[in-house]
Amino acid sequence: MATGTSTNGRVRIPRDAGDDYTKDQAATRRAFVQDRTGTELSHVGHYSIDPATLRGNIENFMGVAQVPIGLAGPLRINGEHASGDFYVPMATTEGTLVASYNRGMRLLSECGGVRTTVVEEYMQRAPVFVLSDALEAREFGHWVDEHLDDIKAAAETTTRSGHLEYIGQYSIGPLRYLRLNYTTGDAAGQNMTGKATLAACEWIQANHPSHPRYILSGNIDTDKKHSRINMLLTRGKRVVAEAVLDKDILQQLMGVDTETLFWARQIQMAGSFLVGSANNGAHAANGLTALFIATGQDVANISEAHAGVSYTQRLPDGNYYWSITLPALIVASYGGGTGLATQRECLEMLDCYGSGKVHRFAEICAAVVLAGETSLSSAVLAGDWVSSHDRLGRNRP
Amino acid sequence: MATGTSTNGRVRIPRDAGDDYTKDQAATRRAFVQDRTGTELSHVGHYSIDPATLRGNIENFMGVAQVPIGLAGPLRINGEHASGDFYVPMATTEGTLVASYNRGMRLLSECGGVRTTVVEEYMQRAPVFVLSDALEAREFGHWVDEHLDDIKAAAETTTRSGHLEYIGQYSIGPLRYLRLNYTTGDAAGQNMTGKATLAACEWIQANHPSHPRYILSGNIDTDKKHSRINMLLTRGKRVVAEAVLDKDILQQLMGVDTETLFWARQIQMAGSFLVGSANNGAHAANGLTALFIATGQDVANISEAHAGVSYTQRLPDGNYYWSITLPALIVASYGGGTGLATQRECLEMLDCYGSGKVHRFAEICAAVVLAGETSLSSAVLAGDWVSSHDRLGRNRP
Amino acid sequence: MATGTSTNGRVRIPRDAGDDYTKDQAATRRAFVQDRTGTELSHVGHYSIDPATLRGNIENFMGVAQVPIGLAGPLRINGEHASGDFYVPMATTEGTLVASYNRGMRLLSECGGVRTTVVEEYMQRAPVFVLSDALEAREFGHWVDEHLDDIKAAAETTTRSGHLEYIGQYSIGPLRYLRLNYTTGDAAGQNMTGKATLAACEWIQANHPSHPRYILSGNIDTDKKHSRINMLLTRGKRVVAEAVLDKDILQQLMGVDTETLFWARQIQMAGSFLVGSANNGAHAANGLTALFIATGQDVANISEAHAGVSYTQRLPDGNYYWSITLPALIVASYGGGTGLATQRECLEMLDCYGSGKVHRFAEICAAVVLAGETSLSSAVLAGDWVSSHDRLGRNRP
Amino acid sequence: MATGTSTNGRVRIPRDAGDDYTKDQAATRRAFVQDRTGTELSHVGHYSIDPATLRGNIENFMGVAQVPIGLAGPLRINGEHASGDFYVPMATTEGTLVASYNRGMRLLSECGGVRTTVVEEYMQRAPVFVLSDALEAREFGHWVDEHLDDIKAAAETTTRSGHLEYIGQYSIGPLRYLRLNYTTGDAAGQNMTGKATLAACEWIQANHPSHPRYILSGNIDTDKKHSRINMLLTRGKRVVAEAVLDKDILQQLMGVDTETLFWARQIQMAGSFLVGSANNGAHAANGLTALFIATGQDVANISEAHAGVSYTQRLPDGNYYWSITLPALIVASYGGGTGLATQRECLEMLDCYGSGKVHRFAEICAAVVLAGETSLSSAVLAGDWVSSHDRLGRNRP
Repeated sequence: MATGTSTNGRVRIPRDAGDDYTKDQAATRRAFVQDRTGTELSHVGHYSIDPATLRGNIENFMGVAQVPIGLAGPLRINGEHASGDFYVPMATTEGTLVASYNRGMRLLSECGGVRTTVVEEYMQRAPVFVLSDALEAREFGHWVDEHLDDIKAAAETTTRSGHLEYIGQYSIGPLRYLRLNYTTGDAAGQNMTGKATLAACEWIQANHPSHPRYILSGNIDTDKKHSRINMLLTRGKRVVAEAVLDKDILQQLMGVDTETLFWARQIQMAGSFLVGSANNGAHAANGLTALFIATGQDVANISEAHAGVSYTQRLPDGNYYWSITLPALIVASYGGGTGLATQRECLEMLDCYGSGKVHRFAEICAAVVLAGETSLSSAVLAGDWVSSHDRLGRNRP
Repeated sequence: MATGTSTNGRVRIPRDAGDDYTKDQAATRRAFVQDRTGTELSHVGHYSIDPATLRGNIENFMGVAQVPIGLAGPLRINGEHASGDFYVPMATTEGTLVASYNRGMRLLSECGGVRTTVVEEYMQRAPVFVLSDALEAREFGHWVDEHLDDIKAAAETTTRSGHLEYIGQYSIGPLRYLRLNYTTGDAAGQNMTGKATLAACEWIQANHPSHPRYILSGNIDTDKKHSRINMLLTRGKRVVAEAVLDKDILQQLMGVDTETLFWARQIQMAGSFLVGSANNGAHAANGLTALFIATGQDVANISEAHAGVSYTQRLPDGNYYWSITLPALIVASYGGGTGLATQRECLEMLDCYGSGKVHRFAEICAAVVLAGETSLSSAVLAGDWVSSHDRLGRNRP
Repeated sequence: MATGTSTNGRVRIPRDAGDDYTKDQAATRRAFVQDRTGTELSHVGHYSIDPATLRGNIENFMGVAQVPIGLAGPLRINGEHASGDFYVPMATTEGTLVASYNRGMRLLSECGGVRTTVVEEYMQRAPVFVLSDALEAREFGHWVDEHLDDIKAAAETTTRSGHLEYIGQYSIGPLRYLRLNYTTGDAAGQNMTGKATLAACEWIQANHPSHPRYILSGNIDTDKKHSRINMLLTRGKRVVAEAVLDKDILQQLMGVDTETLFWARQIQMAGSFLVGSANNGAHAANGLTALFIATGQDVANISEAHAGVSYTQRLPDGNYYWSITLPALIVASYGGGTGLATQRECLEMLDCYGSGKVHRFAEICAAVVLAGETSLSSAVLAGDWVSSHDRLGRNRP
Repeated sequence: MATGTSTNGRVRIPRDAGDDYTKDQAATRRAFVQDRTGTELSHVGHYSIDPATLRGNIENFMGVAQVPIGLAGPLRINGEHASGDFYVPMATTEGTLVASYNRGMRLLSECGGVRTTVVEEYMQRAPVFVLSDALEAREFGHWVDEHLDDIKAAAETTTRSGHLEYIGQYSIGPLRYLRLNYTTGDAAGQNMTGKATLAACEWIQANHPSHPRYILSGNIDTDKKHSRINMLLTRGKRVVAEAVLDKDILQQLMGVDTETLFWARQIQMAGSFLVGSANNGAHAANGLTALFIATGQDVANISEAHAGVSYTQRLPDGNYYWSITLPALIVASYGGGTGLATQRECLEMLDCYGSGKVHRFAEICAAVVLAGETSLSSAVLAGDWVSSHDRLGRNRP
C-alpha cells in the first residue's frame, strides 16, 4: 500500500498500485479521511458489495452511500415490451415522493393502465472538423456523405452492439459538426459511441484529402446537458406513455375534475413556454432520479432525461387523454452500474436486467413519470379546489 | 401488519398503519417483492441506517441502494466560506469519473487553487392568479406591489428561516404569474417556500377585492426543470468558481497548451449556442450528481443545477483564466436527506453539515465542477494533439 | 459635388460634404449606380418626400422603395388608449396578407371587438462591467444598488423623456452585466437609452473605487435580436389583445368550430414548445411588419417584436377566449421614421402620430396581430375540415 | 365601384368586384380614409408603380410607403456566386445605419473582401398527423419512410421548381409531425411548399390504411417565427460570410486592436448564451431589413432570418478571423415582391433579379451582415477605448 505522500503541502489519497479494489484499501481511505478531517465514516463503511466488482465503476473506493429505497405500485402497464403490474423501487431521500408516485400509479392502474412505446432511439457523439473555410467545410460534408459506408465500417470495428445509423451535419463558418447517431443495444452507449466515433474520425482524417483537424466533441452531443437538439432529434430513447383518465375515477381518487385539469393545463403550458422550460409538465426529474439511483443508471443523465413534452386533450366524453413524451431518456439494462449488487436486484425485480431488456425498462420509466404527473398536477388543483370551491362556477378565461 | 390485499386483481404493497418505519416492515416488503417477482433483495436489505430515522425521507421503505463512493482530492479552495484542502466524496457507478475529477483537482491545486463565490441566492415558488382580463391582471400586479409588506408578513408566518425577498411578476393575457423569491437559510427550501407561498396566496385571495382564483404553481418556478428563467434570475445559489491555469503546469499535467485550449473553446461555445444547450461547458452534471448522491442532496435537482456558463480568457502572459458560473445550484446543509447516516458523514468530512454551512458547501460544489471541466476539456484536446501534432502549426480558423 | 474617387480600384460613392440631402445629390448617386452597374433607377427616383427632411434618417440617399399599402378594416378595438373602428394601412408585397388580416378583423369586430392593454413597458441598454473576480463583481453590484439615485441622475441628464426605472443585474464569473430599464415616452428609445446609459456608465466608472472597465453592450440588451430575456422581462411594450369569439359567428365566417380550434391549439402548442419557437401562435410577424413599414417604425425590430404567447380557453358555453401577448413590441409615435411623409400620414389616419400616442399605437398593433391569428388558424383548419369532414366524429386524442 | 356599405355600424372599405387594381380604386380608398379619419393621404398617393402589376402582391391597394434608400459600398465579395465590388441599396428610416454598414464595407474591402458560401438550403412546411396512439404514430412514420417516393411524386405534381428533398419526423404522443424539406429554385418558396405539402398530405391521408387526420401546419415549420429547429436544420439558405481582418487596417480604420476585440467577444458570447439570444452577434437584423425592404423580399421573414452564429478566432499573427453564419436566410430573386418597380431595380443593380440569381443574392446578404458586425462591434469598443485607454494595460479576465 502506498502511503499518502505530500506534494506542496497537499497530502495524497492512499492508493494501492497492485489491487486497489479491496475492503482493506477502502478502510485505509476511510482512515485517511478520519485522519485528515476528523470524520469517522462508519456508515459509509457498511456495505455488502464486493469491492472487486467495482473495477470500471469507481476509483478510490472507500464505501457506499446508503440511499433508502421505497416501493411503489403496482403500476399496470400495457406496453410493447413491458406488460403487467409492476412494483417499482425508488431510491430517494425526499419525503412524499414515493407516496405521490404511488398515488398516481393507483389512478393510472384503475383507469386501465398506461400504454408505453419507444418511438425512436439514438445515442450520439458529435465531433467537429475544422476546415479552411466554409466552402471547404461544405464540400467536406458532401465527402462524408459519399463515404458513409466506409466511415460506418471504421466506427463499427470498435463495437459489436453499436451501429452507426446516420450522421447529422451542422455548419458554422469553417466548422463542420458531425453528429454520429448510433443504436447501442442494451447499453446507454456513451462510451461505446465515443470509442466508435474516435475510430470514425481517425478514418476520416486519414482519408480525406486535406486531413482536417478535429475535436472529438464540439459540444453538440450534448452529453450531460439538456439541449434543444436532444429534444428534437432524440438522445437515448424517445418514449411515450399515454393513458385516458376516467373522469369519475379521477374525481374520486384525486378530487379534481377534468375540466379544471384542462383549464389549468393551458395556463401551465403558457408559463412553461414563456420561461423556456425543458419540460412543460410537472416533475419528471423526481421519478426518473429515484429510478435511476435504484437501478444503477448514470444518474447525471437526469440533466438530459428530465426533458419532456406533455400533450393532453379533454375528450368529448369528458375523459382526459394524457401523454408524456420523454425525448432524451438515456437508460441501460446492461453495463455501467446496472450489474452492481443492489442495482441489479432492483432491475431484476422489474425483469429488466441484462440482454434485450432496455426497451422494457425505458417503457417502465415513462409509465412512472406519467404516474407522477397525474399525481402532482391533481394535488396542486385539489388544494385550490378546497380553498376556492365557491368560486369555481365563474366563467373563467 | 397489513397483508397485501387485492383490488381489481392488483395486489397492494404491505404497509403497517401503526409504525411503518421498522426493519421488520422493510423485510416484509422485500419478501413481498420476492413473492410477486421472484427476486430476492438480499443486498438491498443490507444497510446500517435505522429505519426510524427515515420518516419524512421515504415511504414504503424496503432497503437501500448501495452507491459506491470514491474519494477525490485534495482540492485547494480559496473561497469566502470554503478555504483549505478538501477531500471530496463522490458517489457514482461511472468508471473514470472520480479519476478525472481527481486529475482536475490536482491541476487546480498546483495552480494555486480555486476562488469561489456565492453571488446570489433565491428559492422560488411561482403561483399564477387568474383575472378577468389583462387590464385587471395589470392592476392586480400593482396591488400586489402595494401590499408587499402584508404579503411578506403572511408568507413568513409559516417559517423561521425563510424570508420573502421580492416578487417577480410576468403577464400573459389575463394571467399574472407571481414568482416569489426567498432566502431559505441552510435548507434548499422548496417545501418551505411552497408552504409560505400558499399562505401568501391565501392572503392575497382573501384581501384583494376580486378574490381571484389562483394555482399554486403556474409552472414558471420551474421546479425540477431546467429553464432560461432559472439561468437568468438564479434558483438556489448562483456560484462562481475561478482559477488561473499556469500554462506550464497545464502543459505538464494535461499535455495541452493554452492556445489550443482557447481555440477549442471558441468552437465549443459556437456549438453550445447553436444547439440551445443548458451549459456551454463540458459536464457539470457528472461531478454535481456524484456529490449530491453522496451528501443527501435532492438529486432530482441536477435537472436544474447542471446549467452553467463557462467564461474564459487567455491572458496576455499566456496563462488561462477559467470561470464557471452555476446559476441554479440547489443545495442544503440541513434538512432533506442531509441528516441520514452516510450522507451526514460525507457532509461532515467537508465540514458542511448543519447550520450556517450551506454557502461553504455551495462553494465546494462549484470548485469540484471547475476541476471536472479542466480535466475533460484537456483530455479531449490531448487526444487530438497526439494524433495530429504535425498539423498543429497550421494557421487555423 | 465630390466625384467618385478611386481607392485600390474601388470607386467611392459620390457625396457632397456641404449639403448631401438634395434631389440633385440623390440623382447623382442614381447616375453613379447606372454608371457602375448599368441599372437605371427610374422608379427609385420617383418620390414626393423632400430629401432635406431625411437628415437623421438615412445617409447617401438616392431615392425610395415604393412599398404598396393595402387598407384593412374596420377593426373594432375597445382598449384603454385605442377605442373605436380602425382602418389599418398595411405595407407589404405578399399577396393575401391584407385579405387575411381583413377577414380576421371582420370576425373580431362582429364578435364585439378586441380588448387591448399595455401591461408593461421598458427599453433597455445593457453594459457589462469587468471586475477582477466574482467577489468584486458581486460587491460592485451592491455598490450599484446603493448608488442607484446617483446613477439615475447621471443617466437622466441626457434626456427629458427617458426615465431610468430599475437596473437588473446578472453575474457571470468576474462580469457584472447591468440591464438598465427605462421608460422612453413616445419614442422607441434605443438611441435615448444608449446615450443615457453611456452617461450612467461613465459616472459609475469615475466614482466606483476600482474604476472598472466596461463595454457599453454586453449583448444582453438584446437589441435587434429575439431572446428569452426579452420575453420574460419585456422590451418596448408588453401588450395584450383579447377577444371572446362567438362560436356561431366563428362557424359562419370561418367555417370552423371552437372544439376543433381548441383541439388543434393543443397540438400547435406542443409543436411550438418542442422546437423552441419564439411565438406559440401563427404569424404575428406578418401583420406587424406591414404595419411597421407603413408607419415608419424601425422594421428591424420585427426580430424582437414578433415574439409572443397565445393563451386561449374554450369556455363552458362553447365560445372561445383568445389572447395574444406581445412581450417585446418596440414602437414609437414620435421620432425615427414616424415623421416622414407617407409614414406620418399612415400614423395620422390611426390618430397615432406624435406626443402621447404610443400606447394607442401599441394597442392597435396587438389588435391587428390577434386578427391575423384568428384568420390563419381558422383557414388551416377549415381546409382540413373540407377534406376530412367524414372523419371528424372520431374520438381523437 | 361598390360604395362603402354599413354592417352593424361598421363601414366597409370600398372595393371593385371587377378590376380593383387601378389608380382610381386606390384614389377611392384614399378618399374613403380621408372621409372616415380626416387624414389626407397625399404622399401615400404619390407613386410610379402601375397598380395593375400589384395583383398577387397586395389587396385593397391605396398607395405606397416611400421608404428612403441609401447607397452603401463598394463591398468587395469573393463568393461562389457573388464576386466583385458591390453597391448596396439599403431602405431604412434609421439614421447612421447606412453610414455604419458603409464603414464596415470599407474595412472588409480593404482587408481583401469577404468570402461567401451558401452551405445548405431547405424550405419547409410541417404538417402534423394525428394517430390513435404513439405506437400507431411510430408505425405511421415508418410507412411514410417506405412511401417516400410516392409522397415526393404527389408533392411535386404541384410545382416545377420545388423538389422534396427529405422528410424530418418528430414524435409527440400520438402525433407525428412531418417536416417536409424542399429546394425551391429562385423563389423563397413558402407558398410553393405549402401547396406541394397539401398534395403530399392528401396523398398520405388517402393511401395510409387508417386515413389519419392531419393539420397542414403543426407549428414546427416554423414560418415567420424564430426557432431553434430553424437554426439547427436550416430554413431558406444557410449562408456563411468570412473575412480575415488585418490588425493594422482594423486599428487604423476602426481604432480598435484585435486583442481587445477578441477579449470583448468572449464577454458578448457569454451574455448571448445566458439570455437565450437568437444571435450571438451584434445586429444582423438591421442590414437584412434594409436590404429586404429595398429588394422586395418578404420582410416579415426578418423574424427568422436575423438568427445567426458568429464564430471568430484571433490568429497567431494577430489578425482576426471573423465569420457569421445565417442559418435561416429566406430570400428570393424571383416571385413575391421582387418584380415590383423599385424592388426590381434594386435587385438589378446587384445583378440579382430573376432566374438563377438567388444564391448570389444570399451571398450578398451575408456579406452585408458581416460588414455591419465589424462596424458596430468596433464602435462599441473604440468608445470604451477612448475613455479608458489608460487602463488597457491591466491583466484582465
